Amino acid sequence: MYLKNTWYVACTPDEIADKPSGRQICGERIAFYRGKDNKVCAVEDFCPHRGAALSLGYVEDGNLVCGYHGLVMGCDGKPVAMPMQRVGGFPCVKRYAVVERNNFIWVWPGDADKADESLVPSFEWENNPEWAYGGGLFHVKCDYRLIIDNLMDLTHETYVHTDSIGQEEIDESPVNTAVDGDSVITSRYMEGIQPPPFWQFALKQNGADPTADVERWQESRFSPPSHVLIDVGVAHVGKGGVNAPQQHKARSIIIDFITPETETTTWYFWGMARNFNPQDKALTGNIQKEHKRIFLQDVDVLEAQQRNLEANPGRRLLMLNIDSGGVQARRIIERLVKQEQEENAASAA
Amino acid sequence: MYLKNTWYVACTPDEIADKPSGRQICGERIAFYRGKDNKVCAVEDFCPHRGAALSLGYVEDGNLVCGYHGLVMGCDGKPVAMPMQRVGGFPCVKRYAVVERNNFIWVWPGDADKADESLVPSFEWENNPEWAYGGGLFHVKCDYRLIIDNLMDLTHETYVHTDSIGQEEIDESPVNTAVDGDSVITSRYMEGIQPPPFWQFALKQNGADPTADVERWQESRFSPPSHVLIDVGVAHVGKGGVNAPQQHKARSIIIDFITPETETTTWYFWGMARNFNPQDKALTGNIQKEHKRIFLQDVDVLEAQQRNLEANPGRRLLMLNIDSGGVQARRIIERLVKQEQEENAASAA
Amino acid sequence: MYLKNTWYVACTPDEIADKPSGRQICGERIAFYRGKDNKVCAVEDFCPHRGAALSLGYVEDGNLVCGYHGLVMGCDGKPVAMPMQRVGGFPCVKRYAVVERNNFIWVWPGDADKADESLVPSFEWENNPEWAYGGGLFHVKCDYRLIIDNLMDLTHETYVHTDSIGQEEIDESPVNTAVDGDSVITSRYMEGIQPPPFWQFALKQNGADPTADVERWQESRFSPPSHVLIDVGVAHVGKGGVNAPQQHKARSIIIDFITPETETTTWYFWGMARNFNPQDKALTGNIQKEHKRIFLQDVDVLEAQQRNLEANPGRRLLMLNIDSGGVQARRIIERLVKQEQEENAASAA
Repeated sequence: MYLKNTWYVACTPDEIADKPSGRQICGERIAFYRGKDNKVCAVEDFCPHRGAALSLGYVEDGNLVCGYHGLVMGCDGKPVAMPMQRVGGFPCVKRYAVVERNNFIWVWPGDADKADESLVPSFEWENNPEWAYGGGLFHVKCDYRLIIDNLMDLTHETYVHTDSIGQEEIDESPVNTAVDGDSVITSRYMEGIQPPPFWQFALKQNGADPTADVERWQESRFSPPSHVLIDVGVAHVGKGGVNAPQQHKARSIIIDFITPETETTTWYFWGMARNFNPQDKALTGNIQKEHKRIFLQDVDVLEAQQRNLEANPGRRLLMLNIDSGGVQARRIIERLVKQEQEENAASAA
Repeated sequence: MYLKNTWYVACTPDEIADKPSGRQICGERIAFYRGKDNKVCAVEDFCPHRGAALSLGYVEDGNLVCGYHGLVMGCDGKPVAMPMQRVGGFPCVKRYAVVERNNFIWVWPGDADKADESLVPSFEWENNPEWAYGGGLFHVKCDYRLIIDNLMDLTHETYVHTDSIGQEEIDESPVNTAVDGDSVITSRYMEGIQPPPFWQFALKQNGADPTADVERWQESRFSPPSHVLIDVGVAHVGKGGVNAPQQHKARSIIIDFITPETETTTWYFWGMARNFNPQDKALTGNIQKEHKRIFLQDVDVLEAQQRNLEANPGRRLLMLNIDSGGVQARRIIERLVKQEQEENAASAA
Repeated sequence: MYLKNTWYVACTPDEIADKPSGRQICGERIAFYRGKDNKVCAVEDFCPHRGAALSLGYVEDGNLVCGYHGLVMGCDGKPVAMPMQRVGGFPCVKRYAVVERNNFIWVWPGDADKADESLVPSFEWENNPEWAYGGGLFHVKCDYRLIIDNLMDLTHETYVHTDSIGQEEIDESPVNTAVDGDSVITSRYMEGIQPPPFWQFALKQNGADPTADVERWQESRFSPPSHVLIDVGVAHVGKGGVNAPQQHKARSIIIDFITPETETTTWYFWGMARNFNPQDKALTGNIQKEHKRIFLQDVDVLEAQQRNLEANPGRRLLMLNIDSGGVQARRIIERLVKQEQEENAASAA
């Protein structure tokens, strides 16, 4: 169950730097490539001639050339040319709306005519010299909603990530869940605690005292179809929390763009934008490496959970207060999917 | 087809020495761990909170803590605690009866309330300074009954294990099959023969003349649900066979604990207890290594046989006198499974 | 969809030089081995005793001995002997007609009684000192007919093999398709062109001027069930084309014996017989290596195409003039399969 008339992160620019790239998104097999004026294009990864994968071809004059028999595909899904052939009567393939924005390439896997570029989300940390970004991509063998659940409840940090960002105070603090239109926010505040290893390190990087007691915050925000951004940080006690001056805090935003591949597999784009010492590229690399190690622990847990759920279909799970963020996010997805199906039915009628 | 209200070997102590271990047995996904007083516990490998695999968690104060959100599971399958939660109304998971005995951990994958510890088998060679044991574990992609067939008819030694324990005299000697209650015994005796390489080596280890003619015996005993123990050895001619004095014989027991994972995959615990030179640990290691090499030859044969049988469903096989041990063992399994199903139906009524 | 009462290449002699070999062909699991007088035999790879794979056994006195319990299988599929057993009443297994011819072993996977050795094809380049042969075998995860399509339309050389045998003039030249009984011939002639890298090299090997303009020919011939032989070469302009004297041309025959394993997987025996410098064995090795590299590019394309077609069942493909060779070959296969089915139905009635 996923929305299709919406924007998902499809890939990063480096993945199509040298040649086209094929990726399945929401069940659609899509070829991504740089077309005319270097603009990213996306068409169905299926040559209408004999079914070859267009993504195995190459780009010439801004068009995607099928690597099998040379059919030239336009970025609108209409064949442009083919050696010794008239392509006027050739069937078209699907084209997909696609937008490049701040080092991500976004795709609208549903009806391209309904795509609205103004709906591509934008963020405070993008193209902002006060922030630095590092991230990566995992292929995870689970329903994408299990990853949303995971991120909307950070209680698991205490257990899964004991050596880095976990600390007992997390699950001793109550979690608040709020629904704001189609968004869900879960938040947790800890006061007068000692920062865990990662945040001590971050304070130090920011020139702040790593040994003083802090307030720690975690705010996870789900936005449809499946983005979770988590504002996290620590500030010296009584200095204003997230709004404290730089020398008294360390703050990051965890970025999670979660793109369904199929019903049970997911492309998970993860990263961290940090608001401290943004010029230090070596630091970006180190944090990314550590971040990757931490997130891989989650991948093992998520894939085992998926296998368990598949082996126990229909078994009821608990919905506790800590699960409320994930539960509310699923409700919003379900409502929007139903709405999309009704719109599709209305268009078809 | 397998019995569930019975004891199977689940794992060996080293597999749960440092952390819990998850294993599927007779279709049941089970988490094994050392609980209070170091006692082995086994519960369903499914956290009732969100379906995480409990075996990925850790043990604290004798309880298994879910590695995802910290639910604390008791060894009786009842949740004990969870941070910030009241677990009184939480659903339970299955618990499994489990017994540690002589370097094996046994599990009763069916109804724990029916488990009877007195039924865990015990053996002459266990905790006996006159015997030494070495073994291992294979995961084999075949129906567990094909392994029983294999072991109840040692004719195959001549063909599969030509360079170690095979010899022509095996298939030139008649095999006897006897049914003794729920057990089946197949036996073969060869008289006045030269021992094959392995047994020459064993006689030498025992200080016995390896060049003299011997009597050789092989007695395979099947006991439900799927254990096969094989008494094997050679003794100088006329010295009393299996009862000959030590300086005239060499004797071992081949141990085969065969645990169904699913209908078509099996955990196969194999080993050899030897009654010669038991103090020599290097010898134990060498025999184990050679034993593993020999048994891996069987694994190839068994997995190919399984593929052949799946590709030819319903095709009738021969049931010769040499197959009689396996055939009788299957009949006993079928009868006991039917009986178990009737008991389950009666309990449900 | 494939013919069964016909000859396919099963394997090469080196594959059964030391021991039997099991291979699935047209859905039949077959054990191949050298029997009496070194003659190749083929029987169902299924021991009638317990379903073991006969191909894991060994050959003794010209018979295949099952490696599990020693059943001795005759090359006619009738059990010959088994230790301590009377095999008179044992069921037989299928035997397959098999012929060794010029470094290929051919099998007739259908009814052995209908096999006609005179139908095994023979070729100009076989056992001919003026020709040298080098080739190999790929296992390709696609319908065998996709490989036929590939070879009956060499337009793809321009795109898939740009650095070796591809050149723009190929897809600028019209392709001719002719049906000759059950054969299909597609051909293309280019005149007054510069030879591409491989053919420059070949001319040089033949002592011919590699820089002169040439005529280039490509003639693909499909013959049932699935053989494609391609006569390819270049000759200096005006010297007689394929019939030009040796010092003015370079010629090869690309050999493609395409054997269905299942409906969606294929054993692809590829090779090249060359009519230039046949004594140079190092050259044979070098061409074979390069040939393998080129054909592996096709394998990637074919397997992606197969996945695309499976994901889009029933989607109509184009049938252009360049596809005509493959389309005609498929029609012949369909007609012959229908005829075979009618014959089988008539035999059964």
